[in-house]
Order: sequence, then structure tokens, then C-alpha cells
Amino acid sequence: MFGFSLKPRRPKTAQTAKDRLQILLAHERSGSSQVPDYLPKLQQDILEVIRKYMTIAEDDVDIRVEHKDDISSLEINIEMPTPEQKKSGAQTSKPAKS
Amino acid sequence: MFGFSLKPRRPKTAQTAKDRLQILLAHERSGSSQVPDYLPKLQQDILEVIRKYMTIAEDDVDIRVEHKDDISSLEINIEMPTPEQKKSGAQTSKPAKS
Repeated sequence: MFGFSLKPRRPKTAQTAKDRLQILLAHERSGSSQVPDYLPKLQQDILEVIRKYMTIAEDDVDIRVEHKDDISSLEINIEMPTPEQKKSGAQTSKPAKS
Repeated sequence: MFGFSLKPRRPKTAQTAKDRLQILLAHERSGSSQVPDYLPKLQQDILEVIRKYMTIAEDDVDIRVEHKDDISSLEINIEMPTPEQKKSGAQTSKPAKS
């Protein structure tokens, strides 16, 4: 169907390495149907479903909606703290730099 | 992030043209985290969410789960009847060919 090709990009340094989750939804219309209006609501629902499996901070989520030719696409990019970052965040909660 | 490139493939004839929905979810691990075990359950949840917006027949859904290097991916392909096909299916319900 669509020619998805997943080319992962290496994060620059190990410290900044985070697990990343990307969701791409593409609706290809056969010509007679209108631009779908459900994408914004579907986007909320998908994020809610993902939150059942992992904690996601608002500012770790990047969302793009695009309508081009007969394809409407929704792209959700999420950066997730790795298990270590979660633990170290809990143990060594240094005072915030002022 | 991931280099998604959407190259839509033209359906062969207008009659077989159907709207198509493709969902691709990719989880790139930063090296230390394990292969995620939530994909099968997440797949069910995403299908349930999509069914809030459109009717999908079981045999119009194609699902692939893949774990390769540090990327786990879930791909859901759905063929959807266009508005005309839905209407014509209702008006001219010819007897099934025996």
C-alpha cells in the first residue's frame, strides 16, 4: 500500500538517547470522498490509548496534520524517558538550577 | 525523526478504488530498554478507537508487527468502502452469485 520506509536517525549522544514513539496515520481517499474531519478527535483518542501504556509529558508530544492531494495524514511523535532516566529522575532529584 | 515517506500507490481501476487507511506505529528503543510487550494490546485499542469513526469489516484489516534491530513496529492497513459503495451495497443488493 503506502511505501513506508523506516529510517531511524541515531540520537547524538547516549545521555540524550530516549525511547521514541512515532505514529503515522494516513487516509488515502479514492477521489470522491471528502477530506476526513475526524483526524483531530482521533488524535486525542490515540494519545489517550497510548497513555494507558506509558506516561507521556505534554511537551514530549509533537503532532502534525497534513492534507495533500488525496492523502490526509496525522503524525504523532513522542519522546519517552528510558527506564534509567525515570529511576535517576526519582533518586537524584537535584534542586533545580536557579 | 523516522524518515517516513508516503508514496501512495494508485489503485488499478476506478471500481476497485476504495478509501484506505494506514496506521504505522514505531517504537525506537534507546538501547537499554526491552522489546515493548504492549503492541498487541495497543493494536486492539487503536482499532476500537478507529471503529468510533468508521465501520470496518474484519477482513478489510491487515496487521503486521515487526521487531528489527532497536525498532518495533505495528502496521495496520484498512480498506474502507467509499460512500457510493456503501449506498450501492444498500440499494442494489443483488442476490449473491451461487
